[in-house]
Amino acid sequence: MNAPKPISPPERLLLGPGPSPTAPSIYDALAKRTLGHLDPAFLAIMDEIRAMLRAVFRTKNAMTMPMSGTGSAGMETCIVNLVEPGDRVLVGVNGVFGTRLCEVARRAGAEVTAVEGEWGRALEPDAFRKAAGGAKFDVLCVVHAETSTGARTDVAPLRAVADEMGALLLVDCVTSLGGIPVELDAWGVDAAYSGTQKCLACPPGLAPISFSERAVARLQARKQPVQSWYLDLSLIASYWGTERVYHHTAPINMLYGLHEALRLVLDEGLEARWQRHERNARAFWDGLAKLGLELAAPADERLVPLTAIRVPEDVDELAVRKHLLEHANIEIGGGLGPLKGKVWRVGLMGHGSSPESVARCLAALEAALDAQGVRRP
Amino acid sequence: MNAPKPISPPERLLLGPGPSPTAPSIYDALAKRTLGHLDPAFLAIMDEIRAMLRAVFRTKNAMTMPMSGTGSAGMETCIVNLVEPGDRVLVGVNGVFGTRLCEVARRAGAEVTAVEGEWGRALEPDAFRKAAGGAKFDVLCVVHAETSTGARTDVAPLRAVADEMGALLLVDCVTSLGGIPVELDAWGVDAAYSGTQKCLACPPGLAPISFSERAVARLQARKQPVQSWYLDLSLIASYWGTERVYHHTAPINMLYGLHEALRLVLDEGLEARWQRHERNARAFWDGLAKLGLELAAPADERLVPLTAIRVPEDVDELAVRKHLLEHANIEIGGGLGPLKGKVWRVGLMGHGSSPESVARCLAALEAALDAQGVRRP
Repeated sequence: MNAPKPISPPERLLLGPGPSPTAPSIYDALAKRTLGHLDPAFLAIMDEIRAMLRAVFRTKNAMTMPMSGTGSAGMETCIVNLVEPGDRVLVGVNGVFGTRLCEVARRAGAEVTAVEGEWGRALEPDAFRKAAGGAKFDVLCVVHAETSTGARTDVAPLRAVADEMGALLLVDCVTSLGGIPVELDAWGVDAAYSGTQKCLACPPGLAPISFSERAVARLQARKQPVQSWYLDLSLIASYWGTERVYHHTAPINMLYGLHEALRLVLDEGLEARWQRHERNARAFWDGLAKLGLELAAPADERLVPLTAIRVPEDVDELAVRKHLLEHANIEIGGGLGPLKGKVWRVGLMGHGSSPESVARCLAALEAALDAQGVRRP
Repeated sequence: MNAPKPISPPERLLLGPGPSPTAPSIYDALAKRTLGHLDPAFLAIMDEIRAMLRAVFRTKNAMTMPMSGTGSAGMETCIVNLVEPGDRVLVGVNGVFGTRLCEVARRAGAEVTAVEGEWGRALEPDAFRKAAGGAKFDVLCVVHAETSTGARTDVAPLRAVADEMGALLLVDCVTSLGGIPVELDAWGVDAAYSGTQKCLACPPGLAPISFSERAVARLQARKQPVQSWYLDLSLIASYWGTERVYHHTAPINMLYGLHEALRLVLDEGLEARWQRHERNARAFWDGLAKLGLELAAPADERLVPLTAIRVPEDVDELAVRKHLLEHANIEIGGGLGPLKGKVWRVGLMGHGSSPESVARCLAALEAALDAQGVRRP
């Protein structure tokens, strides 16, 4: 066949559930000269990435590093390394990613108990206690920031719940890391995973993970090998650790991008970044209220980086998204699962969390609703 | 913590076992604006990637696409999708990657029979027959290009062997794709995987795979779900296929790089690219002979993209590699497993397969041997 033309991606403002807009200096980093994965100059970059990840995760965990896959690979990494066949796993399910945790845990041989909650709402500690019914569990899993619904579940109170059950505490931080407070050590989290393409402002392709000493001990005490060789942390830690044992060829240029992304977070300051995300989200919520639009999650359960907006009755959900993409070059997301067709999902994440994004998105939403002849308050 | 400085990777000539040098226009592609994974403009790029991958794999297989991980994730994808617990898998083992196939298959619950061969040599069809001892197998696995030893095993004759055993034919093409002939359909291969960071000249991070109709049928007839959710082809195919069902967020910018890499292959022409790789390898081998250096593999079993050179007695293997890196900015590889300390591995792959690479590497090797006071013929 003949070669197609080189790509020329249109300039979109990425305000969907991710990927978020890539910060300009991260593009530059991605395009730096490729090094070998055992080059001393690359090993030094890896060490800096690990140190920065620990700072961003707010942890001293030695086993903190990016996995060579997207956020879902991070989820699978945490599960397959901690779960052995027959283990009992309790999973909070108030959206797509809780559902996915159940599925991944089942495929790892776990007996899964789901803590079912309303999609779009937070999960309360007592819901976990009730679902557990006094039984012991090996792992308690919770999604901190449900990207599918825009709800935030408080993680800190779940440490005590996990302790009551004898469980490790495993947390999905995909849409929270770098955008709202994530405090692995202060909260007593045993295993966490995230993605690069949300509040870290980096393209998708890597999954930062972190394991507490207790989680590492569980891994070391396994009776059976981890079912995934590619995601086996005991092997990968030998490459990211001092031994530098070859496991697989690391995704060099993506790691350059992550290095720059983490640098930008630390340069801005983690707290300042959280405040920026909150400030822009609040401005966006205020603007939505003026347009007569309602949010899916109550104020105190609302996720700052990602807002789920209820689609008003008689409005064509897909037509609005299409209008935004075609007339304003703005991408926003639709709903998933039970929320399909019922919400729009707007991310103000990482480099995309700015007053300009808020203004452009509100103006484009107003124009799209006008185009449908929607009467506003 | 304070942010470290931005990275500034030194300019290396990557002549190790991979990653190979990234072609300049691929760096440009990596740095193009990130799109959403469901953006119509991105979906068009995905379709072009699939069409180009089919051309490069020489196949009509519908299920041909890049996995969101490195080459080892491609290996695991092929195994976990085709193997169910208790399945019998026959694996040719004449190097590290054959060993790894055994390990991955065991973790998927397979009963593995290894066809042990000398490291540095090809595997003959009769070795597979002998190891099988007339028994039936579900999958026969072979490494086309053993990156760890520089040996090439002919795949075409193994189709008949697999048929005798009732097995699917699974082939590791990591170091062959784009550098030497790979003919999936003509050879009757059922499942193949590769990596981007060898003869495709792209940074590491993606694993092209291809499944024949027969392999897809095996996948569809599975009794148990694929143990890896992240690598489950039945789910991923719904995203890469016409349904566009969200599975995980695709590594957008890496896929831009692969698009450009495949474009460069087709622009050059696949046969012309194979010839270029062979021409430069032969010039390199001639030059090595003049330096009095011997190759590990016999001429007719030798891998063109990657050459394993025997380390002469009394030569410090590591000191020579260090000399090349520090004095000539050239990376070459050492041996693995039983070949550790006994060979150097030099890759002339993708953008790195050029007369300039050959000349620079020979000159640097000569200088490094001189520095050790090695007497040459």
